[in-house]
Amino acid sequence: MVLGGVPYGLVEDAAIAVEGGHIAWVGPHAELPGDWANAKRMTLGGRLTTPALIDCHTHIVHGGNRAREFEMRLHGATYEEIARAGGGIVSTIAATRAVDEDALIAAALPRLNALMAEGVSTVEIKSGYGLSIEDELKMLRAARRLGEMRQVRVKTSYLAAHALPPEYKGQADAYIEEVVLPGMEAAHAEGLADAVDGFCEGIAFSPEEIARVFDKARTLGLPVKLHAEQLSNLGGAKLAARRHALSADHLEYLDEEGIAAMAKSGTVAVLLPGAFYTLRETQLPPVAGLRAAGVPMAVATDCNPGSSPLSSLLLAINMACTLFRLSPEEALAGATREAARALGLGAEIGTIEAGKRAEIAVWNVEHPVELAYRAGFNPLHRLIHGDAA
Amino acid sequence: MVLGGVPYGLVEDAAIAVEGGHIAWVGPHAELPGDWANAKRMTLGGRLTTPALIDCHTHIVHGGNRAREFEMRLHGATYEEIARAGGGIVSTIAATRAVDEDALIAAALPRLNALMAEGVSTVEIKSGYGLSIEDELKMLRAARRLGEMRQVRVKTSYLAAHALPPEYKGQADAYIEEVVLPGMEAAHAEGLADAVDGFCEGIAFSPEEIARVFDKARTLGLPVKLHAEQLSNLGGAKLAARRHALSADHLEYLDEEGIAAMAKSGTVAVLLPGAFYTLRETQLPPVAGLRAAGVPMAVATDCNPGSSPLSSLLLAINMACTLFRLSPEEALAGATREAARALGLGAEIGTIEAGKRAEIAVWNVEHPVELAYRAGFNPLHRLIHGDAA
Ligand SMILES: [Zn+2]
Ligand SMILES: [Zn+2]
Repeated sequence: MVLGGVPYGLVEDAAIAVEGGHIAWVGPHAELPGDWANAKRMTLGGRLTTPALIDCHTHIVHGGNRAREFEMRLHGATYEEIARAGGGIVSTIAATRAVDEDALIAAALPRLNALMAEGVSTVEIKSGYGLSIEDELKMLRAARRLGEMRQVRVKTSYLAAHALPPEYKGQADAYIEEVVLPGMEAAHAEGLADAVDGFCEGIAFSPEEIARVFDKARTLGLPVKLHAEQLSNLGGAKLAARRHALSADHLEYLDEEGIAAMAKSGTVAVLLPGAFYTLRETQLPPVAGLRAAGVPMAVATDCNPGSSPLSSLLLAINMACTLFRLSPEEALAGATREAARALGLGAEIGTIEAGKRAEIAVWNVEHPVELAYRAGFNPLHRLIHGDAA
Repeated sequence: MVLGGVPYGLVEDAAIAVEGGHIAWVGPHAELPGDWANAKRMTLGGRLTTPALIDCHTHIVHGGNRAREFEMRLHGATYEEIARAGGGIVSTIAATRAVDEDALIAAALPRLNALMAEGVSTVEIKSGYGLSIEDELKMLRAARRLGEMRQVRVKTSYLAAHALPPEYKGQADAYIEEVVLPGMEAAHAEGLADAVDGFCEGIAFSPEEIARVFDKARTLGLPVKLHAEQLSNLGGAKLAARRHALSADHLEYLDEEGIAAMAKSGTVAVLLPGAFYTLRETQLPPVAGLRAAGVPMAVATDCNPGSSPLSSLLLAINMACTLFRLSPEEALAGATREAARALGLGAEIGTIEAGKRAEIAVWNVEHPVELAYRAGFNPLHRLIHGDAA
């Protein structure tokens, strides 16, 4: 898929020349330059190729699961009752703290495998369930090691500002001072954080508190991103845009001012239909407004044990169309080109273009729209990494 | 899973004795009768087992796909515009008629493989896109052959009363007389129809027309079932119940009278959340009413190219919980025990009980609720058929 004037940027009977793991040339096979006449050839049998998929927002590293809480909710339990029974994010924090790095990796691997089986070559992984310096570092180390264990690019986000841990109840400032900021420094020193993330919401952190986190990120030279406007409108996206965040994510309650700010800064809107679906939300993100303003829209799984236990990026693409009314072309670009931008990798991956990494998904479908149309079906033929034949 | 007084009928540290493809004994391992002391043993490593899954409502045999129509709808095309562009069910009818039995099988196999990969041992497959005698028989022959090609039980439903083909526009009576009834006879004579199905809806057939189809089924001794109350309430479920139908399917618009009729006849309510999701319906089936009346509830994919391009029964289970508010236990029973009843196979499969076929799914999960909780994740360890080790 070369993005251009035609729908999906489709090139019929295409050839892709690869050298040193990068795309050297792409275009109609008949126009392949003569320099490639003697190159080793591999045929893909006329199959559709797209850029390898990119999941730009996940929480796949975590302890435990919240299946019993899912069941309690379906039996009518209130938020209060679930909390009393030890459920909610607190249970994931406890389960994540209770295990070591190896156990976190063992638990995350099936989720990572599931993503990769659908043609994902790049996965963002957040911390945010440790919420102590050591446990946050443990999560990030697990994420880094996952990237070494599998042929996948892992981008980490330091998300200590995800929730207030029980021991800091009512003391957000102290938590930021004593854990979030020094933890960020430690993560950065160890090379564990590719970006800094936060959760700006009534049940999490205020814009002022997030601003402190972002200030520190700036001093360390780390890019920022933000969970914003998921359940209410606190102006988090505007704050993120002002700080030139890579992305603002969720955005169901984003207003016109937030859209304008994001458009101006080039901040990517990461849409997470899995959480919308699981929580049975009714407030839709302002897709038409984002589209009209030219804000790039990415699509991701938000794979997490509470609000989005979803480990299929193809299903997130289908949900982005079905629930959020993205066009299939937008949703597919959202899990490739725009997801790359959301990770600061727009120059390296996300399209099939000369100069980019040769990370190419090959599909048993006739047209790219089929990747969005089906649900619960994986038509991947193979995933090509670099020169690998 | 033995269904009994405890949630999910779970037995801890269970043993299952299998002989001649059937379950001979099941219970706590410590209580295994001495007669089995010298039997060949296979350990499942302490994993959860459930009955193999059963998809009791599918249209996996069909030509073509409707991906472009999916796209047109997302670009705002009206039903009219899609029809003018050759879309809608008419396009599937044309695509199904245009190909031979082998091509139908080749197209259905990836869908069947996807279902089986999640532990499905039994699949219902409907005709209904041929709508001529020969094309309906072709679909049913393809369905039968799929059952021979894979280790899966296929139950066929003759669904010529699915839609009125273009050549019979405005002539439903003639279509029933000239195609549906003689086609049923031909399918029955060839042993191709395990049941007779219909679509009772304003856009399809009236209760009176369906009654004619059911009359013929009775003379042939074929069980009936019905697509009913999906988009409006025509009283189809009541009709089905009066005819002692195996199931009435969809049921979003089912009323109290229909519920009472189904409860009385033991007709299974087959819930199809994939169609509800894909069509973005808002009218929920009356789950609380069905539950209160003791109507058995099954869950199926409705895998079809138009309203439910879904080929994951686990995803249908998740959607039955998330969208329809079934409990995970109900949804799982809906894809096992109740799905078996919906196919008239309640005595043979659907639970792990002495006397039933040893078709057992083995899962990499700790608790059955996890099968409903995740979306787009397949934790199947293996599927056991009969004595196969
Ligand atoms: Zn998140
Ligand atoms: Zn159907």
